[in-house]
Amino acid sequence: MAEKDIDIYYKTILDLVSLAGKVVCEGFSITKRVETKENTADLVTEFDQRVEEILIKKLQEKFPTHKFIGEESTANGIKTTLSDDPTWIIDPIDGTTNFVHGFPFVAISVALAINKQVVLGVIYNPVVDYLYSAIHGKGAFKNGRPIKCSKQTELSLSQIIGEYGPTRDTHILDIKCKNLRVIIEKVHSIRAMGSAALNLCLIAEGCCDAYFEYGVHIWDYAAGDLIAREAGAYTCDPSGAPLNLVHRRILCAATKELAEQISPLLTHIDYPHD
Amino acid sequence: MAEKDIDIYYKTILDLVSLAGKVVCEGFSITKRVETKENTADLVTEFDQRVEEILIKKLQEKFPTHKFIGEESTANGIKTTLSDDPTWIIDPIDGTTNFVHGFPFVAISVALAINKQVVLGVIYNPVVDYLYSAIHGKGAFKNGRPIKCSKQTELSLSQIIGEYGPTRDTHILDIKCKNLRVIIEKVHSIRAMGSAALNLCLIAEGCCDAYFEYGVHIWDYAAGDLIAREAGAYTCDPSGAPLNLVHRRILCAATKELAEQISPLLTHIDYPHD
Repeated sequence: MAEKDIDIYYKTILDLVSLAGKVVCEGFSITKRVETKENTADLVTEFDQRVEEILIKKLQEKFPTHKFIGEESTANGIKTTLSDDPTWIIDPIDGTTNFVHGFPFVAISVALAINKQVVLGVIYNPVVDYLYSAIHGKGAFKNGRPIKCSKQTELSLSQIIGEYGPTRDTHILDIKCKNLRVIIEKVHSIRAMGSAALNLCLIAEGCCDAYFEYGVHIWDYAAGDLIAREAGAYTCDPSGAPLNLVHRRILCAATKELAEQISPLLTHIDYPHD
Repeated sequence: MAEKDIDIYYKTILDLVSLAGKVVCEGFSITKRVETKENTADLVTEFDQRVEEILIKKLQEKFPTHKFIGEESTANGIKTTLSDDPTWIIDPIDGTTNFVHGFPFVAISVALAINKQVVLGVIYNPVVDYLYSAIHGKGAFKNGRPIKCSKQTELSLSQIIGEYGPTRDTHILDIKCKNLRVIIEKVHSIRAMGSAALNLCLIAEGCCDAYFEYGVHIWDYAAGDLIAREAGAYTCDPSGAPLNLVHRRILCAATKELAEQISPLLTHIDYPHD
């Protein structure tokens, strides 16, 4: 893949998330029609669907051979498996529950994978106008300025992000809460802001030290994984194995040492793959 | 108490938190000397102490008969009981752990109580320049614009804030985690951003629906309680009894109906009073 092509993809998606961000902002402060997906805590709005349609339509016009994996297309039964083809992986609004409540921790997340490797990632919170971005091998940026993760190696000095997620399965909630209970007594603090994509950006910019989540989807972490790694972070499967984008779980830490302290404390949850 | 006096107090504290905010911002992005108080997760920095000194010194010069209850003065053994005298209740940096980690969810919180009733409250996040304020009976404001809490009455549709706090007592952590486990399966979501004062402001501006915490101190919630109530929220003791500013626990909800659904779900924790 020529570097020139990546630059074209990158510039195109930067323009498109800026455009799509206006639609997110338009919907942010108004009362929205909210529907539920898998359960009463798994929400979707007309804005999620509109933003995904805009992004896919415009990308398709420009790059007709490219493939797409989108949260809302998938929810509507359009299942695309990650192949070697250039594939755009799209979460139109990560943090939909925040979006519904008007809590400004929401983002458009877009990654481009080629040969199953993410080559660029863009995460844009249009409400506060924070744009996180990375191209593989070229560092991570927030609004154009380079960002670096913390150098934290000590679990006891760490600020960790740990989420409950949208599942309401009793057994899974029990394990998630057990994991949080085990972690909280060993760390400075646990935070939960409700957006996987932005959580990975918080690790990338160094204001939290590690984040783990089970049950997330490829569109929640494909872009954030690249941005975090390009900012110096270490990402893996929570078990310590290499990260797999379709295994629906991630551990991201400022350092490998920190990841190695967190991994053995967690009870792992398996999900059907994306 | 003449309204004119309250206006003077209000204008004075607005000027002072603006000044003190510069000190917070100065310390925000740099590496700080961090000390611990009650345990390894209960942090304090030289900036907490400096900000409190500035606020008390300037207020004392202007209002020499007033009393003070400050987080860092109290930590240093200066115990002031809430009396009928005009008393400034100060948390120089609420969210110290966030401050240490460079996570921009920090605030200066100041309340003025007269006859043990809070008459004004100001909460200022200088990093993002959000100023929340209220005078008793006159509504709540964010950067000068009126704010209102949500009208949520249904627990199942609510976004709740639930924190772990800085205690590392095993028994207390067990109860806190049990409370969060009971709540999570009944709501849209739980968030934890790590600042009691700002959590109350999030309820006040309507982007979260309820917040409860055990183990907080009078300086964490005196100002936020007023701001939330002036924005239309209902605050009480988590048991459902009237809120007591020195009982170290609070339940704040967008509506009384919502508070009444949350209260019976919680296992209550008693603390020695402030």
